[in-house]
Amino acid sequence: MKSMSTPFSFLHHLTCARCHEIYEADTQAHLCQCGSPLLASYDLEAAREHLSKEMLREREPSLWRYHELLPVRSPENVVTLGEGMTPLLPLPRLGAQLDMPQLYVKDEGTIPTGSFKARGAAVGVSRAKELGVKTLAMPTNGNAGGAWATYAARAGLDTYIVMPEEAPLITRNECAISGAHLFLVQGLISDAGAIVGRAVKAHQWYDASTLKEPYRIEGKKTMGYEIAEQFNWQVPDVILYPTGGGVGIIGIYKALREMQALGWIGERLPRLVAVQAEECAPIVKAWQEGKTESVLWPHSRTIAFGINVPKALGDFLVLDAIRATQGCALAVSDTELLAAQAQLAQTEGLFICPEGAATLVAAKQLRASGWIKADERVVLLNTGSGIKYPNTVQVSVPLLQPQDELPVSIAG
Amino acid sequence: MKSMSTPFSFLHHLTCARCHEIYEADTQAHLCQCGSPLLASYDLEAAREHLSKEMLREREPSLWRYHELLPVRSPENVVTLGEGMTPLLPLPRLGAQLDMPQLYVKDEGTIPTGSFKARGAAVGVSRAKELGVKTLAMPTNGNAGGAWATYAARAGLDTYIVMPEEAPLITRNECAISGAHLFLVQGLISDAGAIVGRAVKAHQWYDASTLKEPYRIEGKKTMGYEIAEQFNWQVPDVILYPTGGGVGIIGIYKALREMQALGWIGERLPRLVAVQAEECAPIVKAWQEGKTESVLWPHSRTIAFGINVPKALGDFLVLDAIRATQGCALAVSDTELLAAQAQLAQTEGLFICPEGAATLVAAKQLRASGWIKADERVVLLNTGSGIKYPNTVQVSVPLLQPQDELPVSIAG
Repeated sequence: MKSMSTPFSFLHHLTCARCHEIYEADTQAHLCQCGSPLLASYDLEAAREHLSKEMLREREPSLWRYHELLPVRSPENVVTLGEGMTPLLPLPRLGAQLDMPQLYVKDEGTIPTGSFKARGAAVGVSRAKELGVKTLAMPTNGNAGGAWATYAARAGLDTYIVMPEEAPLITRNECAISGAHLFLVQGLISDAGAIVGRAVKAHQWYDASTLKEPYRIEGKKTMGYEIAEQFNWQVPDVILYPTGGGVGIIGIYKALREMQALGWIGERLPRLVAVQAEECAPIVKAWQEGKTESVLWPHSRTIAFGINVPKALGDFLVLDAIRATQGCALAVSDTELLAAQAQLAQTEGLFICPEGAATLVAAKQLRASGWIKADERVVLLNTGSGIKYPNTVQVSVPLLQPQDELPVSIAG
Repeated sequence: MKSMSTPFSFLHHLTCARCHEIYEADTQAHLCQCGSPLLASYDLEAAREHLSKEMLREREPSLWRYHELLPVRSPENVVTLGEGMTPLLPLPRLGAQLDMPQLYVKDEGTIPTGSFKARGAAVGVSRAKELGVKTLAMPTNGNAGGAWATYAARAGLDTYIVMPEEAPLITRNECAISGAHLFLVQGLISDAGAIVGRAVKAHQWYDASTLKEPYRIEGKKTMGYEIAEQFNWQVPDVILYPTGGGVGIIGIYKALREMQALGWIGERLPRLVAVQAEECAPIVKAWQEGKTESVLWPHSRTIAFGINVPKALGDFLVLDAIRATQGCALAVSDTELLAAQAQLAQTEGLFICPEGAATLVAAKQLRASGWIKADERVVLLNTGSGIKYPNTVQVSVPLLQPQDELPVSIAG
C-alpha cells in the first residue's frame, strides 16, 4: 500500500549553500569543508508524488504536519511541545490607519518558549537525538538558548549554553530551570560563539550554533509553509522579517522554493524584506552597497537584543533571498520600534517583542515611499512575545488604598 | 440549504446557577437577582441536530471551532488573537518516574498573553462588544487583567483594571502597553474588587469581574471541549486544576455536561480535582468539611499568585463539580510547587507557571495515596507560561570573559 511505503521524511542529502558540495545526511554534520553552512535537500519529486497539500488539512496544528519535508526520519525521534501553526492575524484597525488594508502579523509569540526559536530547537534537537547526540553546546542572544535548553531537556540531552551578560533575564531562567549548564560572557554573541567553538572542539560536543548544524533552519522554514497554507496557498506580496542571524528569512525562502518544486505555489514569490536595527545593520549596509556578504558591524547595539548580530554566518544567503525575490533591506531606530510596539498593542491588542516591532516601522516606511502598494498583502513576522522583555515597557501606575475610589479625573 | 440556516451560535438564554431563574440572553446581564452567577444555556437539541463532532476536523485550530456552543451570535463580533487548541502533551519521562504512564499536561502557556485567561477574555470581550459595551472594568490578580486589556484593545473598548500591588510585574506591562487605565491597590484581589464594584456603579461601566458577567466562563469551558477532542472523544480519568476563582473547573464541568447532551461523549466523566495553595485553601476546607460553600480565608498568601483568591463567587459551583464527578480537593505548599515546577522543566522541558505546578504536586500525592491508579489517564491543567513569573526561578550564573574557557570542572 502506498501509505505504508511512504517515508516519514524525504530527506535525501546535505548540500553546501556556497560551493554546492554534497554530503551524506545520516551522520552528524556541521559546516562544509569550505566553511559554509550545509542545507538539507529532499527528494522533492518523490514527495510531490506521495504528498498533496490537501492531505495536510486534517493533520495536527503543529509544524510536524509537514514531516515529509522535515529531516527527522522516524516519528519516535520527534521531540515536541506542540510548536507551530501559530496565528496569522489580520490587523484591520492598524491597517486602516496606515493605508495597508491587507496588513497581517504572523505571531510567533504564541509558541512554546514564547519565541520562534522553538521551531529551530524542536527540529534541531529531534534530529540531533536521532543522530545519537548526547551533549550539545551553543552561543545565544537568549531566546535560542532558552528554546534549545527546553527541547534538550525534553529529549534528555545535556546542554551547554553561553549568552551575553545583557541578554534578557527571562531567557536565563529558561536555561537554568531546564537544567542546562549556563554561562554568561561579558561581550557579544560573537564572543560567546568563540568560547563555545573552543569548548566544542575540546570536548567533542555537538555544535548547535546558528547554521553550524543543518537542521535548525528546517524548523524555521515551516513559517514559510504555514504562511502559504494559512493564505490557502496564495503567497502574500511582502514578508518583513527582523534579521539577526537571518535563519528565518533563509528558511522561508527555502520553503518557498520547495513549495514551488512541489507544485503547491505558483511562480510569484513574496518580496522578502530584511529589517535590522540602525546600530546593528551589517546586512542592510551590504545590500545598499551591492555586496554579496556583510562586514562585521563594530560596537553594535540595539534594544531589540535578538537582532544584535554583528556578522551572520548566513549573511550571503539572506542577501541572496532578498535579491532573488526583489525584496530589500532597511534599518530602523530603537525609538521608532518601541513606539511601534506600543502602537500595535494599543490598536490591535498584540504585545509583541521589540524585534517584531521593527518590522512594523519598516512596513510604514516602505508604504510611505510607495515600495509597498496599498492593495498589497503584507505580513509582519513577529518573532516572539512582548512578555519576555519586561524592561522595554515603562509603567507608572497609581497606588490606591482599599477604601479609595478610582480617581474621578481619570475615570470620569 | 441546511448550512445557510444553521446559526453561528445556539445560545438560547441565561440561567441562574443557584436559583435557576431564567434571563434573556441578548441584553447586558450580570448577576441574578439572588446574587449568583448567570450561566449561558444553549439549544443543545438543535445543536445536536446541526453539528457533529466530525464537522470540527477541518476547522481552524482555535477555540472558535466550537462557535455554535459559544455565545457570540455574529462572526464579525469575534475578537481573536488565535487563542485555543493548545497542546495536550504526554509526559513520558516524568510519568515513568511517578508511576503514572498516562500523565499529560494541557499546556495553556502556548496561548496569547501566555495564560489561559486569554480564553475568557476572547469570548467575554467579543460578547461585550456584540452587546454594545464601550467601557469595561475589572479587578484581577494580574493575568486576567493582561488578557482583558489585550482583547479590549483589539476590540477598541476602554478598560479600567485594578490589581494588587504584588501581582506579577509583567501583567502590569500588558495592561499598560495595551492602553488600559491601570491602578494598583495595597491589598488583595477582594480589595480590588470592592473598588471596581463602586466605580462600576458610579460610572455605569460593564463589570467584567469573574463570574459577574456570564461569558468569560464560556471561553474557559473550551478547555474541556479541547481535551475531549484531543483524546478523540475519550475523556481522561482525572483532570487536576489549580483553583482560585474556579472558572476553569466550572467551565470544564459545564463543557462535559454539554458534550453529553450533544452525544459527543459517554456517561463516564473525568474526576475533577481542585488544587489550592496551603495558605489559601478555602475550597479545600469546605470540601473536607462537607460544606456547599467556602468561607473567606483570612491572610491568604501563596507564590502562585493566580490562585490567591480568599473567597470565590463560584465556590459552590466548584464544589458541585468536584462532588458530581467523584473528584476531590487538596492543598499543596509553595515549597512543593516550586520543586515540582523545576522537576517538570528538567524532565520534560516544560517551563510552566507556579499555579500549574501545583497540580503536579497534587497528582503525586493522589498517586501515592492510591486515589489515582497507575493505569489511569491523568491531565494536569497548566494555566500559563513560566516566563511570566521571572522571580520564581533563582539563577546564579558564572560570568566569563571573552578569552575564558568553559570551566573544565563543570564542563568536563
